[in-house]
Amino acid sequence: MTSLSGVWAASLTPLTSDLTPDPGRLVEHVGRLFLDGCDGIVLFGTTGEATSFSVGERIALLDGLMAGGIDPGRVIVGVGCAAAVDTVELTRSADAHGVAAVLMLPPFYYKAVTDDDLAEAYGWIFGQIGPEAPPVLLYNIPQVSGVRVSANLAGRLFGDHPDVVAGIKDSSGDLQSLRGFLAAMPGAAVFAGTELLLVPGLDEGAVGTISAAANVNAVDIRRAFESRAPADMEILVEARARLSAQALIPALKSIVAERLGDPGWAAVRPPLRTLPTPVGSALASALSSA
Amino acid sequence: MTSLSGVWAASLTPLTSDLTPDPGRLVEHVGRLFLDGCDGIVLFGTTGEATSFSVGERIALLDGLMAGGIDPGRVIVGVGCAAAVDTVELTRSADAHGVAAVLMLPPFYYKAVTDDDLAEAYGWIFGQIGPEAPPVLLYNIPQVSGVRVSANLAGRLFGDHPDVVAGIKDSSGDLQSLRGFLAAMPGAAVFAGTELLLVPGLDEGAVGTISAAANVNAVDIRRAFESRAPADMEILVEARARLSAQALIPALKSIVAERLGDPGWAAVRPPLRTLPTPVGSALASALSSA
Repeated sequence: MTSLSGVWAASLTPLTSDLTPDPGRLVEHVGRLFLDGCDGIVLFGTTGEATSFSVGERIALLDGLMAGGIDPGRVIVGVGCAAAVDTVELTRSADAHGVAAVLMLPPFYYKAVTDDDLAEAYGWIFGQIGPEAPPVLLYNIPQVSGVRVSANLAGRLFGDHPDVVAGIKDSSGDLQSLRGFLAAMPGAAVFAGTELLLVPGLDEGAVGTISAAANVNAVDIRRAFESRAPADMEILVEARARLSAQALIPALKSIVAERLGDPGWAAVRPPLRTLPTPVGSALASALSSA
Repeated sequence: MTSLSGVWAASLTPLTSDLTPDPGRLVEHVGRLFLDGCDGIVLFGTTGEATSFSVGERIALLDGLMAGGIDPGRVIVGVGCAAAVDTVELTRSADAHGVAAVLMLPPFYYKAVTDDDLAEAYGWIFGQIGPEAPPVLLYNIPQVSGVRVSANLAGRLFGDHPDVVAGIKDSSGDLQSLRGFLAAMPGAAVFAGTELLLVPGLDEGAVGTISAAANVNAVDIRRAFESRAPADMEILVEARARLSAQALIPALKSIVAERLGDPGWAAVRPPLRTLPTPVGSALASALSSA
């Protein structure tokens, strides 16, 4: 099994013309990401519009990805839902395929929840999925989910469930936050949730990055991972700046669409909106000239 | 069919000992709420822990409620999910039972969404459910969902989809917000999402309230609805103050449990936590002495 480290892409989820997940386009995309230097991919993170799909659609797309010959040891599956029972069902499906790990948001509808509430909720889920479940990466992305996984909570879960919790993806975008997890979970697989903290994170003990931008920029991220050179990090910062005028997920999809000459790739699910083709073209050429 | 007005309870969702929805306890609870003066109930609002259940569990509980003989014309069903496809499936299930209306959160995972994004998302859902769907009440509860339904958005949806959008439940708890919806949606069924704004809301044109506290306090809310007297409103304010030391949903469930002598009624799903029995006892007696 690939170890939980290195450069992982938070994969986009391509859609068919009726907005259902498209396993064919996904298998090809993941193959390209591996060629471009990704150690693995996360299926159904925030970038993958995970929460815009039904549980059945998510299970079917993972089945399709596996049927397409992708190595499950190079796949982490996002499983965190508003309903803990759905998280359990998705984790069992991921387990059946022998994936590298699952990425688990806390239940995210109720906002006035405490660390005690979330510790009990995660504990309930872990009890349901049992001890042979795939390793669990906690998922902190409070600016989107609205529910923070604090360093205190992560450290407590890592201590209380050492055979279950393997690490965390910290997508807060904040180096101080990443440091908090590194301190609270010594020896855990702590991933920077953005390539913009790749080298600073590695320097302090993070194992790598799970990156949205890797969908369109994996070669450069791989290079920075290997070199740890400031000049290579600067290239990543510049590339991200060229993306930032648009909502990130539609922008990334439109760039892939433009590069492949496959306009259907640009489609997103509500509540996101697909970018007009000319915007995607401009983004793709801006990124290429970075 | 009961008109969309008056006093509606945002019903709690009782659970069995394995934390699955309990149709037997629910049917009895709804019967009591009707006896206490509620015009109807909302199944699967925020108070009903809607987002803590799978789509299958939600459909099964509505089936169970209908099988228990509850008049569908006195039931509004919450259907809004993070995934618009799940919202469509739940709306179809509610439609099959001929319920009074559905209560529809916007897709709530992504937070940096605009009114244009949400107008398109609601429009996509309305297109999928078709023109014969039950009337739709929009659902604004930004402090929990993290996604605001603005007055501008509500007015636009009411204008663009007059055969679909019947009104809104505004659970912001803010009279100014309620006024905004009344101004933006003339003639719509605008519900105050808390009994604390019942009489102020009625005075400005709201049709009634959909209230969490009605689970334990319906008689008093009914009285205030009929009298519109300041003294009767003051009773509601005092009752709510006695509830406010604890998380509202576990508190309401524990009060029902105490009154019925049925400790199992107090159970909540993660990420909420069940209150210890003595806390429920104290809450119930505090409320009774109000």
